[in-house]
Amino acid sequence: MADILASLRSLMASQSPPLDALLVPSEDYHQSEYVSARDKRREFVSGFTGSAGLALITKNEARLWTDGRYFLQATQQLSDQWKLMRIGEDPPLDVWMSDNLQKEAAIGIDPWCVSVDTAQRWERAFAKKNQKLVQTSTNLVDEIWKNRPPAEINPAVDHPLEFAGRSVAEKLKALREKLSSEKARGIIITALDEVAWLYNIRGSDVSYSPVVHAFAIVTLNSAFLYVDKRKVSSKVSSSLQANGIEVREYGAVSSDAAMLASNQLDQATGVNFGQNGVCQNDTCDNDLIWVDPASCCYALFSKLDANKVLLQQSPLALAKALKNPVELDGLKNAHIRDGAAVVQYLVWLDKQMQEIYGASGYFLEGEVTSKKIPETMKLTEVSVSDKLEGFRASKEHFRGLSFPTISSVGPNAAIIHYSPQAKTCAELDPNSIYLFDSGAQYLDGTTDITRTVHFGKPSAHEKACYTSVLKGHIALGNARFPNGTNGYSLDILARIPLWRYGLDYRHGTGHGIGSYLNVHEGPHQISFRPQARNVPLQVSMTVTDEPGYYEDGNFGIRLENVLVIKEADTEFNFGDKGYLSFEHITWAPYQIKLIDLSILTPEEIQWLNRYHSKCREILAPSLHKNEMEWLKKATEPVSA
Amino acid sequence: MADILASLRSLMASQSPPLDALLVPSEDYHQSEYVSARDKRREFVSGFTGSAGLALITKNEARLWTDGRYFLQATQQLSDQWKLMRIGEDPPLDVWMSDNLQKEAAIGIDPWCVSVDTAQRWERAFAKKNQKLVQTSTNLVDEIWKNRPPAEINPAVDHPLEFAGRSVAEKLKALREKLSSEKARGIIITALDEVAWLYNIRGSDVSYSPVVHAFAIVTLNSAFLYVDKRKVSSKVSSSLQANGIEVREYGAVSSDAAMLASNQLDQATGVNFGQNGVCQNDTCDNDLIWVDPASCCYALFSKLDANKVLLQQSPLALAKALKNPVELDGLKNAHIRDGAAVVQYLVWLDKQMQEIYGASGYFLEGEVTSKKIPETMKLTEVSVSDKLEGFRASKEHFRGLSFPTISSVGPNAAIIHYSPQAKTCAELDPNSIYLFDSGAQYLDGTTDITRTVHFGKPSAHEKACYTSVLKGHIALGNARFPNGTNGYSLDILARIPLWRYGLDYRHGTGHGIGSYLNVHEGPHQISFRPQARNVPLQVSMTVTDEPGYYEDGNFGIRLENVLVIKEADTEFNFGDKGYLSFEHITWAPYQIKLIDLSILTPEEIQWLNRYHSKCREILAPSLHKNEMEWLKKATEPVSA
Repeated sequence: MADILASLRSLMASQSPPLDALLVPSEDYHQSEYVSARDKRREFVSGFTGSAGLALITKNEARLWTDGRYFLQATQQLSDQWKLMRIGEDPPLDVWMSDNLQKEAAIGIDPWCVSVDTAQRWERAFAKKNQKLVQTSTNLVDEIWKNRPPAEINPAVDHPLEFAGRSVAEKLKALREKLSSEKARGIIITALDEVAWLYNIRGSDVSYSPVVHAFAIVTLNSAFLYVDKRKVSSKVSSSLQANGIEVREYGAVSSDAAMLASNQLDQATGVNFGQNGVCQNDTCDNDLIWVDPASCCYALFSKLDANKVLLQQSPLALAKALKNPVELDGLKNAHIRDGAAVVQYLVWLDKQMQEIYGASGYFLEGEVTSKKIPETMKLTEVSVSDKLEGFRASKEHFRGLSFPTISSVGPNAAIIHYSPQAKTCAELDPNSIYLFDSGAQYLDGTTDITRTVHFGKPSAHEKACYTSVLKGHIALGNARFPNGTNGYSLDILARIPLWRYGLDYRHGTGHGIGSYLNVHEGPHQISFRPQARNVPLQVSMTVTDEPGYYEDGNFGIRLENVLVIKEADTEFNFGDKGYLSFEHITWAPYQIKLIDLSILTPEEIQWLNRYHSKCREILAPSLHKNEMEWLKKATEPVSA
Repeated sequence: MADILASLRSLMASQSPPLDALLVPSEDYHQSEYVSARDKRREFVSGFTGSAGLALITKNEARLWTDGRYFLQATQQLSDQWKLMRIGEDPPLDVWMSDNLQKEAAIGIDPWCVSVDTAQRWERAFAKKNQKLVQTSTNLVDEIWKNRPPAEINPAVDHPLEFAGRSVAEKLKALREKLSSEKARGIIITALDEVAWLYNIRGSDVSYSPVVHAFAIVTLNSAFLYVDKRKVSSKVSSSLQANGIEVREYGAVSSDAAMLASNQLDQATGVNFGQNGVCQNDTCDNDLIWVDPASCCYALFSKLDANKVLLQQSPLALAKALKNPVELDGLKNAHIRDGAAVVQYLVWLDKQMQEIYGASGYFLEGEVTSKKIPETMKLTEVSVSDKLEGFRASKEHFRGLSFPTISSVGPNAAIIHYSPQAKTCAELDPNSIYLFDSGAQYLDGTTDITRTVHFGKPSAHEKACYTSVLKGHIALGNARFPNGTNGYSLDILARIPLWRYGLDYRHGTGHGIGSYLNVHEGPHQISFRPQARNVPLQVSMTVTDEPGYYEDGNFGIRLENVLVIKEADTEFNFGDKGYLSFEHITWAPYQIKLIDLSILTPEEIQWLNRYHSKCREILAPSLHKNEMEWLKKATEPVSA
């Protein structure tokens, strides 16, 4: 690790101008949340494996900024050379730079890995002390990364209409209408899930996200896909061609962006500009290039004429978030199969915990003296999560996991985005809470569910915390709200029951989820952070409902279902706004043993019983007899 | 009315340049919410008496923008010449101007009546079509207003330390520290309540607000009060002088602002600048003039060097909102006297309604056939509100009402800021809901309370609505939340129970309340409107809790208590943030008859019983025997 920093610093010094600092973000060229192994540059330099974080290397220091989900994990993973900067507690990067780096310092970035928004924010902040953001011509981390994983040639595949629900032609038509109405003549699409969604293609270039490393440019008349051509079979190629999409090499996006800026991209394909580039029809009023400043990298933006750029959220973000009926059906079906896998897992785990560890099990509260288990029989966080993956893998349309399974025992459950490693992970413990947050990619939909269980005797405190989390989970999931309401307003509903006791959690409450795409998608979210993009929740969006509580060194609790937003069947419609509500599409029981029924309201108990009864009904056809018996017991109606 | 518009239009045409439009806002030179009679220019031109609204007069049209509280009232009060523009539904002013007024139109304003924020926003908006904001040299409305009420010479009085709790010297010291830390050498204070609070003076220039028409300028070394000197007795004058405050004529603020800008104001008093205006000590690093863009008028701002202005919320807004222990004691005491007056009023009204109208009364549900009552015996919205004022006037420290009493029967209760007029107001009705929202100014505090009652048989729908409003009122008042939480986040708690049925209300949920000052004060609020000034709720602030529901043409419901923010006694303190909660300081019963107990949770019923029991306890010493018997009955514990 010392070598890495030393090599980087010597490379920084050799740049022109010499760099006083280098910023290494987590993101790839597409601002992806999950990136391929060869794009994990921030992890390579810092050793921190979390999905979000920003590394800063100066001549004498190395610092890593990350958010509350990762404070504990980063503390454990960072070496002495690194200092953890806690977002929300420590000074933010721009303040730190201005307070600690000298005037006129040169701060390097790879402009392909930084969004327009971020780069511009940094430029403004650094300008205060005449510090300069320097775009390096190569990625310095790549240069010193000796065993960097090679690029893989993973095939792109068609995502058929029976799952996509909407043809590429329809999507392109709607996009072009949007371009026209915003006076744009083209758009550069850089987010991998937007490219995949628009062209109805999928791939496997990034773990957990079925996307292809690719850019797209769409103009009023043309459409391009920039991708390593070796990934495109003749079958995929011909369906792309049928939709008027031209396939070009991945690297060509850079020169094509410049061509687009100088109005020569369409000309090359000869569609609506004449030989002299003179406009032949009235679409030429549109002279802007649409770029989403949150996802487009600074490198591509720099190819454009800044005065002719429409910096605005990509229209595909909302279009993709509003699921069509085929996608909604697919998501619901995928969640039924996924729920069955989770129940099968719980049945299996319950049996193992009793047989191997002598635990009282899922239903009974009994203490057990920890005993030494033969190495070969031990259950570990990784071995059980492999079993869970196995149950999912047996289901129709399974294509892999949607994110690294969080399988965590006791104190590890307090690490919000804990990722167990086979060699170091903890053993299951009949006297500790066990939390698993996991999901899968199915051809018809992406899933994400969290349950927290205990196979022995939970403490009164653990029950009180579980119940408070459950109350917040129910309050949010049960809410009705008028059109126009955003997730920032709703977030508090999940926290109020925790706040009552002075408890809280350091993460948002909900995110959109893709249709066989990214497990986290916007443009909406449910969060306590005021959003620059304050997108209201709308009918047919998906969103998770996942409050939690984490006690460092002790345990963690989280409960997560996926919800679909639908019209609410309210008695009145004040203000003619239309009211919305949520439909739960995740099916798995909450553990009654962990609920302190005395602090649930009659309404909450009624909800719980109704949800449990639906679980039985919906999962019955997918379960074996013994599993169904277990589920019946797990979902028996309760009363206060 | 036609004459007014015609006269205004002819005056507009005679200006140089001739005006294509004139904007007439509601505010006075101090951006006050309540203004003196001679400052009611917008009401004079439009006939609309609501507290908020903006009039636009063009050559051919007259339009009035106002918010949801006033839609119904404005519809009733505006003549055919006027068109109502509903904020949130119709295009906002800037959009309308750009869509409907010609390019390069000249739009007049009196720069004394428009804040810096508003004027700058309009300038930017109008610039899109090269329209120009023209500052008129006189107020055009004043010029055509033949019987404009004359200026009154109301005396200013000292507000003694036993009520203010903090000396002027302490307040000035804290203010100057704030100036120093923000690199400011002076501040122009234009909000009337800020001037009154800072200098511990009160007056009676504006109905309902015990303020003096005055400006203040405070520098690091000097302090000035700009006021009609005839209002300042020698006693007040000497206590001002003792605090180093120089009294100057009201009109002198304009030239003094210019002097302040050119650094000659302090020089004149010879404190920290030498004969040549050269700085004599290190305070001269401070070269900014602090101006609150939301309250300072454009006229005064225009006297300053824009590059040397600190446009930021006045530090007095927060200082005034954080009540000191003496103010908190005073507020609590004032609310006990006020609660006693409200109970006495209810006892009296209950008796009248039974005796005169044969109503079943406050406690029983009985229908009654409306009968013709002799004119002299009739109870009207105004006559009963006079009685309520009488009960308050008999209390210690009473100084008047804190806003026009909303006393409203049936459909009138749906007019959120209804203001009954003696000649036209409605008669009390034993078969209708009656809503009263009222408050008083006492030397030790300002009050504001709303109750909704029915003296006959409320419908099931009215009960369901009352109960939903009550549930929201309880949910907000009962909330605990971490430091840093703002009122925008909390607002939803009061709405969720209404949203469940598709109901809502078109106003915010809470406002700060002054200490013998304005009944509405910031800088915090509880509102669904995202606030530019997102001030978190803090210990020792006051805030109202007043959800409602309004059914046009039928009835209105609102319940309002004043709350004080205090530290919450939570079991845990996650994140070491400190948790807060509310203390109710308003004491008056909710009408059990209007509550559908079956939709209250056990927790809500417990809260109601506890609050009612405290009402008895706290008001007992202030009530007569018969009143106390009535209150005991009104606050009997209930169960589901």
